[in-house]
Order: sequence, then structure tokens, then C-alpha cells
Amino acid sequence: MNNFKFHARTDVRFGRDQIMNLPEIIKPYGKNVLLVYGGGSIKKNGIYNILMDLLRGFHIVELSGIEPNPKITSVREGVSLCKEHDIDLVLAVGGGSCIDAAKVIAGGALYDGDPWDLVVDSSKIDKALPIVTVLTLAATGSEMNQFAVISNMETREKLGTGSPNFVPMASILDPIYLITLPNMQTAAGTADIMSHVFEQYFQKDDGAYLTDCLCESILKTCIKYCKVALENPKDYEARANLMWSSTMALNGLASAGKGGGWTCHPIEHELSAFYDITHGVGLAILTPSWMRYILKEETLTRFCNYARNVWGFEGEDSMELANKGIDATENFFKECGIPMTLREAGIEEKSLHDMAVATTDHNDMSGCYVSLTTEDIENILKNCF
Amino acid sequence: MNNFKFHARTDVRFGRDQIMNLPEIIKPYGKNVLLVYGGGSIKKNGIYNILMDLLRGFHIVELSGIEPNPKITSVREGVSLCKEHDIDLVLAVGGGSCIDAAKVIAGGALYDGDPWDLVVDSSKIDKALPIVTVLTLAATGSEMNQFAVISNMETREKLGTGSPNFVPMASILDPIYLITLPNMQTAAGTADIMSHVFEQYFQKDDGAYLTDCLCESILKTCIKYCKVALENPKDYEARANLMWSSTMALNGLASAGKGGGWTCHPIEHELSAFYDITHGVGLAILTPSWMRYILKEETLTRFCNYARNVWGFEGEDSMELANKGIDATENFFKECGIPMTLREAGIEEKSLHDMAVATTDHNDMSGCYVSLTTEDIENILKNCF
Repeated sequence: MNNFKFHARTDVRFGRDQIMNLPEIIKPYGKNVLLVYGGGSIKKNGIYNILMDLLRGFHIVELSGIEPNPKITSVREGVSLCKEHDIDLVLAVGGGSCIDAAKVIAGGALYDGDPWDLVVDSSKIDKALPIVTVLTLAATGSEMNQFAVISNMETREKLGTGSPNFVPMASILDPIYLITLPNMQTAAGTADIMSHVFEQYFQKDDGAYLTDCLCESILKTCIKYCKVALENPKDYEARANLMWSSTMALNGLASAGKGGGWTCHPIEHELSAFYDITHGVGLAILTPSWMRYILKEETLTRFCNYARNVWGFEGEDSMELANKGIDATENFFKECGIPMTLREAGIEEKSLHDMAVATTDHNDMSGCYVSLTTEDIENILKNCF
Repeated sequence: MNNFKFHARTDVRFGRDQIMNLPEIIKPYGKNVLLVYGGGSIKKNGIYNILMDLLRGFHIVELSGIEPNPKITSVREGVSLCKEHDIDLVLAVGGGSCIDAAKVIAGGALYDGDPWDLVVDSSKIDKALPIVTVLTLAATGSEMNQFAVISNMETREKLGTGSPNFVPMASILDPIYLITLPNMQTAAGTADIMSHVFEQYFQKDDGAYLTDCLCESILKTCIKYCKVALENPKDYEARANLMWSSTMALNGLASAGKGGGWTCHPIEHELSAFYDITHGVGLAILTPSWMRYILKEETLTRFCNYARNVWGFEGEDSMELANKGIDATENFFKECGIPMTLREAGIEEKSLHDMAVATTDHNDMSGCYVSLTTEDIENILKNCF
């Protein structure tokens, strides 16, 4: 079990009507609030009106239109608003995209240069305005961690950054907000949660048994409840379990005592940077292809554990058992309605090589569970084209 | 899934040599440190000397001799020292007893009356000095929660209290500190961890599936590694997994979305209050007896889940399956060397009735998983005499 630090300061308020606590939560930080949200779904589902009622007495400045893969242009706009209106607190209402944008805005508000600097070099983030979130999509885990991913369409880059200053002070997690999601977002969000766990679970065996069991627990929860939510979007138990899974998958606990670089996320970031596809869809497509590519003698035990403990499969032949787990993963995503080839997702064959090159340009892929070269990545991409 | 709040601010530093970070961690809080520890094992195992070297430059005031069931008399002594020496920070080095004492000392230092008031009425704790801990026993989970249990031998009371102000600012968790523990402490500590999980897991089914899986994960980890640690006390992987289990069992995650009152802990507090026995031993003795007493149609499914998911048992007959899980629990504690009757633990038959009465006097047992009367509790005690 490797050494680790776990420090998750976020005050999580989980459940029905927790938004009523928002005024009391944000009051200590000041009066001037930048409200960051997306394409307007919070107006359709009523959250916007509830917020405006609740936050009478605060000075609200709005930044709407945050994109699904949030752009640095939106962040720059938010930073200008913060400086212009002397903002005390950034309130993100939405999914991971809004929260990620809010984080870099909060950092940019207290930084003198272009906020893209903070994405390229996280060491430049030495302070940030306090961030509070109201989550409306179970996916990225951004509601309880320090990470943010921002895209720059000019430079065709989608890069991750992070800072302890970016950890939200509080997050409102009300599963009711998920019931109006289109099925594709529920499915893609679940794929994102599962991919976070895969990135942490499929690592060298460091004897972090409890953490491995926690990873398996989150995966089982996603598998059990995603289909329930797709069939009956109003099922509270399903929505609640998926929402809590998203937070638990990436607040530090699923890697406690483990380590190693991520694989599918860096590759997927290039898919999104080149084609602006849905992050979770890209991850779902890549995952089985990656798993098959790295399945070999050294990784066999872990893949067998996965097949046994997550899917409940049994079997004498280890390689067969491992493949059963991978096949089940692919079928699961398919049954959730996710297009499972890059072609179906709108990606062109001619870009596969460039995206593989960009992956290794932007990331050191030698510390992954199985280290990958540019050629390996191109092969993985071809296998799921 | 019930509504819940999760807010665990503790900065956890887990692993080998994490104590080296202590000066940097405590520096922001001030110079004057009250060092709280127990019977002197930290002098034998070298932690004391390391601390004294590291904390040169701080003004250290010592309070040693904290008892295994910490007494209010020790707390009062600590409070006097805080007031006399203008203490800025309470540093607990030890197991849950030291940490619990440190918490009430930290509260008492900023309170005008007798610190016993803060044990009897937690609403009186409106502030506390910052608390930092160095954990040397995996058991109570006190290193990352707001709870403290203090005994008053004059009034023959052992009562729990708690406050958000009691949550440690930071905790150093180095599994190496566990390797010199006597086997009985390893076993009793593990029984305590498992009992914390049982209290949270055996509750009405509120659809908190992920939390139930986490509970099962912690139990499996305890079962897997306790015997390893008993056979080979220096096994790092075993110690690390047990240590992290103790923290995860009682930092709020194992009850997220669940609820209901505890059963064995309130009863055990009376055993300890009357006879000053080891808390974990009392819990291990009570647990199987309690489980058998409450096993019936309404609780059957949960006991079957326990037998299946924690112990890996299968079977067609539900009642048989459930009993297999309970028997396995009892055998496990036995095999860990814990005396499994109250008689062996030195408790006298004549006190059983009084301890049952004291349990219902001090606690409302109607909100437990299965609500218990004084008579029920006396029966449970008789069954494990």
C-alpha cells in the first residue's frame, strides 16, 4: 500500500431539497456571486427559479452557456466578470463542465495573466475564490476534487489542471436533478464514472485491498443502477446511487494507497479536442479496446479479479474469465445505448494517427498500468474504429 | 437513500514516515502544544524520541497516562494544563482513548465550567482548540471524526459526545506504529472496527447500495488481514489495510444515506463502565449474541446478504445461510484469541440486570435496527455470559 494524502474539505449535502441550505452555506464568503451554468437546462427544470428566490439579498452576476467540453473562451469571460464585479464566490450549477469552468474562473480571478496559463501550468494556481457547486449530472466527480479540464479550440488542446484551491467548499447533491437528463447523458455520465474507477483500479497490485474493494463497489453500483435509471428515469434510488458513485469515484478514496498514470482519459481528451465528442462516449468506446490490448500474463490476475468481483463470473480458465469480464463491459455500454465505435461517434479514420501522436505529445504514457507508445495508441484507436 | 451531510475536514497523511510532516502541519496553529499520550508505549517504540526531535522549537507540555477507557479526571488535568500554559494545539499520540481525551480537553480549554458538562451535553461544545493526531492503534476511527467517549468512574458512566469542532485538523496514520502492538490489542481493535460497521450496516434497507458495499468491503478487509497481522505482526500490507479500515469505518462514509441507532456500543459502554474491560472485547462478545437475538423474518434478507457478500457463503435455506454468517463471525473472533463469554472477560452474573437497566437509562434503544427493551438486553447479556 503506497503512501497517500487524503484531504477532501468539501461540505457535501446530499439528498432531496438540500439546495435550501445554500444561502446559509455561501453567506460567510460574501455578497457578490458569479453564477456559472450551461445551456439553459436549469431554466427548464426549475432550478434557476429556485436559486433566484433563495439568493435574494445576494448580488448575482450570471455567466451562462458553458459548453459540454468547457472552453477557455468562456473561462476568460468569467474571469472578466469576476474582476469587474468584485466577485466573492463562484457558484457552479451544472455538471462537471460548469464546475471545471468555475474552478479555473475562480483561479483566474486572482491571477494577473491569461487563465489559460493556469491550465497549462497548475503550479501557477496559488489561490482561488471559494467555489460552491450544485450538481446536475453524475459523471466527473469534480464536485469533490481539485481537478478541471478545459479545452482550447484554437490550439486544439484539451488539458487537465488542478489545485487544492480548486476543491469546492461545499457541494449540493440532489438526485432529483438527474431525473430530467436525456438517457444518453445518464449513460455517458455512468461511463465516465466507471472509467475513473478503471483508471485507478487497473494498476499494479500495491496491496491496497480495501481500496480495490471500494473500486469494485462503485463499479457494481454503476452496473446495477444505470439500466434502472435508463428504464425509469424517476427512480430515486438509482439516481442517488449513481450520484454518490460519481463523487466517490474521484474524491481520492478510489486511489488511496494505489498509484500510476491514467490511460483512457488522456487518449479520450484528444478525441474530444479533435472532434468535440461527448467525453463519456469516447471513454466507453476506448475502454474495451484498451482492456483487450493490455490483457496479458502480467495483468491477468487483476482482470480475473475484475471479472469475478464486479461481474460475478466464475471459471477455471483465467484468460477466458478475463475476456468474459471485458466482453461484459463492452456489452453493458452497448446496452446502455452508447455508440461503441469511433466511426459511429463521428470520428474520421484519417485522424487516428494524429490523435495518437497528440496523446503522447501531451502526456507521458510510460507510467500507465501498461505503458503505451504512440503506435500502441494508434492500434487501440484502430481496433475501436 | 436518506439525506446526509458528509464533511470530513481531516488532512490524512497515510503511510511510512508521514510523521516527518508534523512540524509543517502544526506550525500554522501556534507554538504551545499539549502532547497527550497513554501509558508510555510511545517511549518504548521510539515515537516519543522522534517527536521530541521533530518538535524542537515548539513549547511542549506533556500529559501522559491517559487510560484505555479515558477518564474525566485525566481530561480535567489536561484542561488545567491548557489554561495554565496558554496551549494553542492539542496533539494526541496514541489510540482512540488518547484522541478522545484530547478532543474533550480541546473543548474544555475554551469552556468555563467542568469538562464533564461537554460529555453530558454536546450542545455546550461551541469551540475547541485545534486537534492533531498521530495514530498508534487501529480501532476507534476517532482520528477522522467528531466523536469522543469518556468514562466517569465516580458516577459509573461511560458516555459518548461529539462536535464538528472535535474533528482533527490532521491525522498521521503510519502502519509501522501498529507492528509492536500486543496481539490482543490487534484483535480487539479489529473487533471494534467491525462493530462500527455492523452498527451502520445492520439497519433498515434504505437503498444505499454503494454504502452497503463499502461496509462489506471494510468487513472483508478486517477478516482477511486481522489473522495475517496476528500471525506476522510486521506484515505491512495487513497493518496498512487494518489502519485504513479503522478510519473508513467511522468517518461518515459507512452510514452515508443510511440511518438508525446503534445497539452493541451502548450496551458495551455499560460493561466497560461497570468493569473497565477492553471495549473491543466487550463488542466481540456481544455481537453474535445480539445478531442471533434479532434474526427473524424482517432481518433475514440483510443477514443473508451479510453471509453471502462478506463471507462468501451460498445456500438455498435463508435461515441456515444467515446463521452460517453469524457462526462465522463468532468463530472469527474466537480464532483471533478474544475471550468470547462475559464470564471469561471477568464480568459477574449479578451485574447483568443492572447493566441492562443502565443501557436503557442512558440510551433510547427504540431507534435501533431492532428496538430493544431492558429485558431484551438482559437476555442478550445472559446469552453470552
